[in-house]
Amino acid sequence: MTGRSVTAYAPATISNLGPGFDILGVAIDAPGDTVFAQRRREPGIGFTLKTNQARVPENAQKNVAAHVARLMLREIKPGFGMNLRLHKSMPIGSGLGSSAASGVAAAMAVNALFTRPLRKEDLLRFALEGERFACGASHADNVAPSLLGGAQLIRSYSPLDVVRVPVHPSLYWIVVHPHLVVLTKKARAALPRRVPLRSAVQQSGNVAGLILALTTGDKVLLARSVEDVIVEPVRAKLLRGFQDVKDAALEAGSFGCSISGSGPSVFAIAPSLSKARDISRSMVRAFRRSAGVHCDVFISRTNDLGARIVWRKDS
Amino acid sequence: MTGRSVTAYAPATISNLGPGFDILGVAIDAPGDTVFAQRRREPGIGFTLKTNQARVPENAQKNVAAHVARLMLREIKPGFGMNLRLHKSMPIGSGLGSSAASGVAAAMAVNALFTRPLRKEDLLRFALEGERFACGASHADNVAPSLLGGAQLIRSYSPLDVVRVPVHPSLYWIVVHPHLVVLTKKARAALPRRVPLRSAVQQSGNVAGLILALTTGDKVLLARSVEDVIVEPVRAKLLRGFQDVKDAALEAGSFGCSISGSGPSVFAIAPSLSKARDISRSMVRAFRRSAGVHCDVFISRTNDLGARIVWRKDS
Repeated sequence: MTGRSVTAYAPATISNLGPGFDILGVAIDAPGDTVFAQRRREPGIGFTLKTNQARVPENAQKNVAAHVARLMLREIKPGFGMNLRLHKSMPIGSGLGSSAASGVAAAMAVNALFTRPLRKEDLLRFALEGERFACGASHADNVAPSLLGGAQLIRSYSPLDVVRVPVHPSLYWIVVHPHLVVLTKKARAALPRRVPLRSAVQQSGNVAGLILALTTGDKVLLARSVEDVIVEPVRAKLLRGFQDVKDAALEAGSFGCSISGSGPSVFAIAPSLSKARDISRSMVRAFRRSAGVHCDVFISRTNDLGARIVWRKDS
Repeated sequence: MTGRSVTAYAPATISNLGPGFDILGVAIDAPGDTVFAQRRREPGIGFTLKTNQARVPENAQKNVAAHVARLMLREIKPGFGMNLRLHKSMPIGSGLGSSAASGVAAAMAVNALFTRPLRKEDLLRFALEGERFACGASHADNVAPSLLGGAQLIRSYSPLDVVRVPVHPSLYWIVVHPHLVVLTKKARAALPRRVPLRSAVQQSGNVAGLILALTTGDKVLLARSVEDVIVEPVRAKLLRGFQDVKDAALEAGSFGCSISGSGPSVFAIAPSLSKARDISRSMVRAFRRSAGVHCDVFISRTNDLGARIVWRKDS
C-alpha cells in the first residue's frame, strides 16, 4: 500500500482583520501553497522544495512543512515514511500567512496518506506547532482559517478556542501585496505593551460591530467597524504609502481597509467583483504614487472550504 | 387640546454585559420606572415623585425625569406645559440602570404628548443628556436598551453609534439584586486607566464570542464568552460574596454570570424558565451565606420592545 500520493492546497489568509488583532482571520481563494506527498517504505520524511523565492528554507530541518510532517509521523506512527514536495508559490513576509499555508498544506497532505486519517479539526494543533516553529509564536488567526476555511475567531489562546464566524456571501476581499518588506518581528516589537482602557473599550466595540456586520452583510456597519485604534496606527508607520492606499480604497467605495497580518499586504472589502476591481486599481495606483512600488492583487470571496486535497492517486 | 395624558414604562437593563464593558446592554421586563404625564396650559414642568426610597431627588431641579422633560420642552416648544409624576419603583444604585429608566420613561411620556411626536430613536439623545445629568457621564449601555429594547451595542461613543444585537429567544436573564450599596463613583474610580494589550485582545475575543453566541443561541460558546478579564476582577472586590454567587450560578447550570453595571446586582443566563428559577435560588442562597444579605430576584426573556406607552387618554 505504498505508492498512494496526494496533493493538498492551503490558502492565504487575511489576519488581524481590522480591529480583530490576533483574534480574527479569513481565508481567501488565492494565493496559496501546495504540498505533494507520497508514501514510501523507508521511514521518516524526504523533503524537496520548489520555489523561485530565495528566503524559503530548503533544509528539511528548517522548513515548516517538513516540521509539521515530522510531528505528525512521530505521533501517529503509520508504519511507513513519506516523500514531501512543497510548491511554495506564496510570497513570504507578505502578511498573508505564508508559513501557515505551508504548514497547513503539509498537515492535509500527510493526513490524507494515513490509513485512518484524523478529522480536519484535529490537524489544527500540528499546524499551530508549525507556526510556532516558523515564527516563534503560534498565532492561530492565520492557521485556523487556512485549515478550516471561512472567517475564524480565536476567542481564546489558552485554552485554544476557535469559532467559525459566518461571513455573508455578498462580500469580496481585495488583497494588495506591495513589493516591500516588513519584518514580522519588527512589526511585533512596535506594539504597545499596555493600552488605555478607553482604547480597549473602543476596540471591543468595533470588534462587536465587525462580527455583526460580517454575519449580516450590513455594509454600512462594516464600514464603520473596520477601525483599528490600537495596532494599525503603530504599524501604518512601518508601511510606506499605507495611508494613501487606505484613502484610495475608501474613496473608491471600499467598506473598510486595513493592514493584513503585520503587513505589507493591505486588504479592503468590496460589495461586488467589479467594484473590487475598481478599488484594487485605485489601491495599486496609490502604492505606486506614494511608495514607488509595484503590487500583486488578489480578489476573492470568502474561501469557506479552507485547505483541501486537490489530487489523489492510489497505485 | 390640553388634558391629554399618558403613562410610559421604561425597563431595567443589564449593562457592562460580561466582557462588554461600557458597550453592551440588554433590556429585561422588570423592574422598571413609570412616568405619568399630562398636558397643561401653564408652560414648563410640574413634577411630583412617588417612591418609598429616601435617596431619589424629589426636587424638579435635580430629578433626571424632570430634567429630560425640561430639555425636550425647551427644544420642541409645544406651546403647552406638562405635569409629570414619576413612579420610582426601581431601586437606585442597583446596577440596573435606574436613572436611565427614569429618564427614558420621561422622554417617552413627554414625547407622546406632543402633537407631532419624534421617532423613538430621536429620544436617545435626550435620555443620554438625562444620564449625564444624573451620573456625570452619558454611558449609553443602559439608556439605549431601556429605550429601544433588546440588546444594544454602543459601537462608538464619539460619534454615538448604537446597533441592535439580535438575541436568540431561547435565553433567559436572571438578575439578583442584593440589599447592598456599591457606589458607581467608587466602582468607576477602581478601574485601571491602562490595561495590558494581551488583556485587551482577550477581552475582544470574548466580546466577539459573546456577540456570536447571543445571536445564534450557542450556549456552550456563551458560557465560554461571558468572561470579563478587565473590569470584573476589580469590581468583584467591591462586592461581598460575588465569587460565591457566581460559582453557585455556574454550578446550578448558568451559561455565564457577571456583575450588572457597576453592581451590586449580579446577572446570570439560563436556558429555560425553570432552570432560571433553580439558578436564581442558588444565587440568593449564596448571597445570604457569604454576605448575609437578602436579594430581590428578577427573571425575564430579552425585552425586545424597550420603553413603551402603557396607557393613554385624550380628553
